[in-house]
Amino acid sequence: MDFSNVQALVFDTYGTVVDWRGTMIAEGEALNIRKSLNVDWAAFAAEWKSHYRPAMDAVNADERPWTKVEAIYREKLEDMLPVYGLETLSAAEIDHLNRVWSRSLPWPDSRAGLKRMKSKFVLSTLSNGDFIWLAQMAKLGDLPWDCILCAENAKRYKPAPEIYEMAIELLGPAPDQVMLVACHNYDLKAARGHGMRTAFVPRSYEFGAGQKTDLNAEEDWDIVAENLEDLATRLEC
Amino acid sequence: MDFSNVQALVFDTYGTVVDWRGTMIAEGEALNIRKSLNVDWAAFAAEWKSHYRPAMDAVNADERPWTKVEAIYREKLEDMLPVYGLETLSAAEIDHLNRVWSRSLPWPDSRAGLKRMKSKFVLSTLSNGDFIWLAQMAKLGDLPWDCILCAENAKRYKPAPEIYEMAIELLGPAPDQVMLVACHNYDLKAARGHGMRTAFVPRSYEFGAGQKTDLNAEEDWDIVAENLEDLATRLEC
Repeated sequence: MDFSNVQALVFDTYGTVVDWRGTMIAEGEALNIRKSLNVDWAAFAAEWKSHYRPAMDAVNADERPWTKVEAIYREKLEDMLPVYGLETLSAAEIDHLNRVWSRSLPWPDSRAGLKRMKSKFVLSTLSNGDFIWLAQMAKLGDLPWDCILCAENAKRYKPAPEIYEMAIELLGPAPDQVMLVACHNYDLKAARGHGMRTAFVPRSYEFGAGQKTDLNAEEDWDIVAENLEDLATRLEC
Repeated sequence: MDFSNVQALVFDTYGTVVDWRGTMIAEGEALNIRKSLNVDWAAFAAEWKSHYRPAMDAVNADERPWTKVEAIYREKLEDMLPVYGLETLSAAEIDHLNRVWSRSLPWPDSRAGLKRMKSKFVLSTLSNGDFIWLAQMAKLGDLPWDCILCAENAKRYKPAPEIYEMAIELLGPAPDQVMLVACHNYDLKAARGHGMRTAFVPRSYEFGAGQKTDLNAEEDWDIVAENLEDLATRLEC
């Protein structure tokens, strides 16, 4: 396939570029030691994340007004604190815990792959995460984005059409000038529906060793790469 | 003044960070030689730029629909080509000339100043330029933005309220968490009106040696710096 028309690569970020679950468990285990707690952070991460999709779907269905992910995670966190024996955390510690999503660290291949691709393409996030969180996360993980685009810019969450249309308008304007890179088939399916190019990168440990979803490409995406270093190679960077 | 609350610096870009006029004249003079032309590129730059404000004001007043800067400059360029003896340029050469706005190079202090400030603050454009042009210009000039924000994100041009409100919402949310850095007093006045912090950097040669406007700070902006290196020093970066 000829990719000479592509001028921008947009990346799903949580899962595709950063290991949100691994970071959360590592930070949580450090908190267990510091506070003499016994929280099962893998279970905590799974339960917390499970709140995310229904809340975003409610925004997309206009069942609730536009709500930042920071607030979506915060409302679930408040419910979970007593269940996990975390009700003794101070207000500052709860704030810090909620912002763990802004401290997710890259997978081992992410930084090197992005740096290679940056010489040839405009690189952007296209994430359901909040704008400032994505910017701060990039600083922490040394992720070389040229720009940040996310649900907050469009006031809709993926896979709502508005977010893909926004990326195409800002980074195209032809849909095939923009390629989505993602580890989630649903996201690539939506992007393809708008005429964007698609690249799948499996992240088989995003949800831990027992992961059952998104282990393989479910359609003939334009590129199927092993990781972001391999993607850079396939894009001749 | 205490700036400890500031987490993001947003920069007017054309004039404040890049020397659009100097780049245009340098590229134009090279074109004169290559094509045996005799265009007065300083006059060309002044006339071309003069079209920009009225067209943006018409968008802000809803007298015309949202129009990208690329199209605003292109319509004026088409009018100017025969006046300046440029009607023999090919379609590709005209496209390239219009995109000179995406190739504006930084002032000598811009890159070094921004790199120092990047370690402490989220750095964004807040420009009336188009999104992809700003991203491409940053690559060419090695400008270390964390993100790009511009009129295109808000579908309004500065000094319309929507663009400042957007910057505050995405990078605050408190207005005093965001500081506008600009060489244009009108822009800082609008930002202050929204509660943002303000920093003035004079660019006395933006419009050439005869410049009469924006030579000095016209209000007591929070910071008045000599250039972006000096601003980094004042912000203790």
